[in-house]
Amino acid sequence: MNKIEHLGIAVESLDISIPLYEKLLNTSCYKIEEVQSEGVRTAFFKIGDSKIELLEATNPDSPIAKFLAKKGKGIHHIAYDVTDIESEIKRLLEEGFELITLSPKDGADNKRIAFLHPKSTDGVLVELCQEKN
Amino acid sequence: MNKIEHLGIAVESLDISIPLYEKLLNTSCYKIEEVQSEGVRTAFFKIGDSKIELLEATNPDSPIAKFLAKKGKGIHHIAYDVTDIESEIKRLLEEGFELITLSPKDGADNKRIAFLHPKSTDGVLVELCQEKN
Repeated sequence: MNKIEHLGIAVESLDISIPLYEKLLNTSCYKIEEVQSEGVRTAFFKIGDSKIELLEATNPDSPIAKFLAKKGKGIHHIAYDVTDIESEIKRLLEEGFELITLSPKDGADNKRIAFLHPKSTDGVLVELCQEKN
Repeated sequence: MNKIEHLGIAVESLDISIPLYEKLLNTSCYKIEEVQSEGVRTAFFKIGDSKIELLEATNPDSPIAKFLAKKGKGIHHIAYDVTDIESEIKRLLEEGFELITLSPKDGADNKRIAFLHPKSTDGVLVELCQEKN
């Protein structure tokens, strides 16, 4: 794990939360991107060597809609940057962690991603991210 | 806001969670510190330019004990590094944010800290951190 690549934060409305985060972080949103396969629209902010990713659900079956219904607005996941996602998945499986995603899939912001199950990571949803070449 | 200084994660037991995070992050815990005024024992891990701070309650009135009772284990707060905490508090008040801490207080890991109220930050507890000289 190289660094915190981003923090994913579930919000009800990007229209409301983007200006709020621009004031909070004192920086502008640099990208809005929809990931149809995940049912989310995302907004990104740079902060040091990491990013904040706001997540808005685009349909009622979206994981973000379910998270908002269950837990309300708040931090949804931590994403760690990795150099080689396949070898990191292998290492974590050998250490006894449970992976939701055994084969990396495409994520927002030009990444290959995989998720660990929160029940093996102390209640925290963890994402692995590798920048695509 | 310069960077994500650390993420605070509420855990039930450092004895269980420290070895888990050492395996997850593939790095060793570099410091355990108790902050009596906050009723917490903390464990730190370096990850890139940021840190993960595990938080264990040391008494039933601790904010972490209350968080665990209400929400369960998980991410408790995001701490942002700032250069001048007083001027950052002033800027955020002028932007309409609500501060829990109007005058910075001492936190773990040689920091002066202040918290914003989650109701003004979209449900996320936000900490400002300035390294002490």
